[in-house]
Amino acid sequence: MKLTLLGCYAATPRTITNPTSQVLEIRNRMFLIDCGEGTQVQLRKNKLKFSKINHIFISHLHGDHMYGLVGLISTFMLLNRQTDLHVYGPKGIKEIILLQLRYSNSFTGYNLYFHELESKESEVIFEDDKVIVKTIPLQHRIYTNGFLFQEKPKERKLNVAAVEEYQIDKAYYRKIKYGGNITLDNGQIIPNAELSFDPEPTKSYAFCSDTIYNEAIVPLIQNADVLYHEATFLESEADKAEKTMHSTAKQAATIAKLANVKHLVLGHYSTRYSSIELFQQEAETIFPSVLLGDDGKVFDFE
Amino acid sequence: MKLTLLGCYAATPRTITNPTSQVLEIRNRMFLIDCGEGTQVQLRKNKLKFSKINHIFISHLHGDHMYGLVGLISTFMLLNRQTDLHVYGPKGIKEIILLQLRYSNSFTGYNLYFHELESKESEVIFEDDKVIVKTIPLQHRIYTNGFLFQEKPKERKLNVAAVEEYQIDKAYYRKIKYGGNITLDNGQIIPNAELSFDPEPTKSYAFCSDTIYNEAIVPLIQNADVLYHEATFLESEADKAEKTMHSTAKQAATIAKLANVKHLVLGHYSTRYSSIELFQQEAETIFPSVLLGDDGKVFDFE
Repeated sequence: MKLTLLGCYAATPRTITNPTSQVLEIRNRMFLIDCGEGTQVQLRKNKLKFSKINHIFISHLHGDHMYGLVGLISTFMLLNRQTDLHVYGPKGIKEIILLQLRYSNSFTGYNLYFHELESKESEVIFEDDKVIVKTIPLQHRIYTNGFLFQEKPKERKLNVAAVEEYQIDKAYYRKIKYGGNITLDNGQIIPNAELSFDPEPTKSYAFCSDTIYNEAIVPLIQNADVLYHEATFLESEADKAEKTMHSTAKQAATIAKLANVKHLVLGHYSTRYSSIELFQQEAETIFPSVLLGDDGKVFDFE
Repeated sequence: MKLTLLGCYAATPRTITNPTSQVLEIRNRMFLIDCGEGTQVQLRKNKLKFSKINHIFISHLHGDHMYGLVGLISTFMLLNRQTDLHVYGPKGIKEIILLQLRYSNSFTGYNLYFHELESKESEVIFEDDKVIVKTIPLQHRIYTNGFLFQEKPKERKLNVAAVEEYQIDKAYYRKIKYGGNITLDNGQIIPNAELSFDPEPTKSYAFCSDTIYNEAIVPLIQNADVLYHEATFLESEADKAEKTMHSTAKQAATIAKLANVKHLVLGHYSTRYSSIELFQQEAETIFPSVLLGDDGKVFDFE
């Protein structure tokens, strides 16, 4: 599981800071999360292949999380994309994108699917054989979702020595990997535990931005491997955080602690502060494993 | 008159090339022309003051000429802008911007005026005491205008020695600057030519992008000081230029020659070529004063 932060600053694109966008690579899938202005250039700078993006998740319809989407969709057209593209985001996102494509008399040569979200409860919005994605309803000034990406249980690992010893036919390997016991020709039942090893543990990633401090999300992200939680302000501006429905670094760390996640990645910093290290220092007073997000940073969670 | 090219490449923003946007400073006014994705970052990089932009002209609704507009309008809000902002562009631009602001529940604290264009004839769309702006109807895949910025005649310059010699009261200086003759107390009429010098000649700038080769624009831009004309392709790709309704460098130079402009600035290059110098070389076979546009370049026409 690998996370690339294309942009993790609040509000407005600047010369060296970019609005929210990130790429999660998990089980050979590449998910784009949010798409602020300049995302396509950040993808290029970070040498991420446009063609590997098939699913885009948009948390909410504030510009710093989605003004780069229409341009990316247009660039996919110019690149002669053929593969389906799926966009998951709040109701309205389809109207916004299609209106602009219509006025520019541009039509995608690929199928563009919008999955519009309106539920205030967590729901499964993507699922294939390896990954499942659920919404994390957040509290912000407009309708907003975080996203929880969970690996599905991996196959058990074949105990090669054991299956050879019992002379088990290869046809049964799949059954063993999925946890089944094997009955030999002589009627003897070999329990799965003798024929396989536990799979690698599954990983999960929770993206939570933008949101006011909200303990209601804790059960949804309990024990996640990695939590990205916005920290627009420091605790000294807790009043501004509350007023604008954002969080402080301390609040982000508190959520991480309550949810017992392994690592907390901070981001969505206001540019009012002299140094983003201040966010890390504040969060570390509450939670031990704080990773300081920054544009272009790559976190490898293998 | 000063022209800053924020972006002058076709199609899609890349790591080192930007889509169309430029700033024309003329008679202490600052006009933004087109606004591709990333324009606000380019404004910052070029240290141009956001607050000086009060009028934005959008040629057409293709993304590489306007996807940066909604973000710029949003950033003006965050910067707590109070001054009126005027946007001139094709019909539809208002709907596109307001839809996005509505979904993000964002409202400008300043007055935002849209001047939507639909005419296929040249028309005056802006005029104050110093500058006049007219559309230049262009032929492209969708409704498109170029823009002609013309300085209004400046005041005549006072001949200080002459007015002192005739002991003319200061109250008459304004009349002299505007070309009037002066009658002295003794009835003698002093012709204006004795009391003032010719004003500096007025300047004009014609922006023409995107467009197929179109001689119909020549009368509108006749004798302009500076013509920015798109040159998406070289003559070797003249077929592609025609098909996509763009121009070649040679065609841009031909228009410059027919219109008898002083200088031609090239831009809107396709990134397919190894070097933009090729555009200049091709244009110079037709027209002598070719200026090679590039992102971040500033042309001072004083």
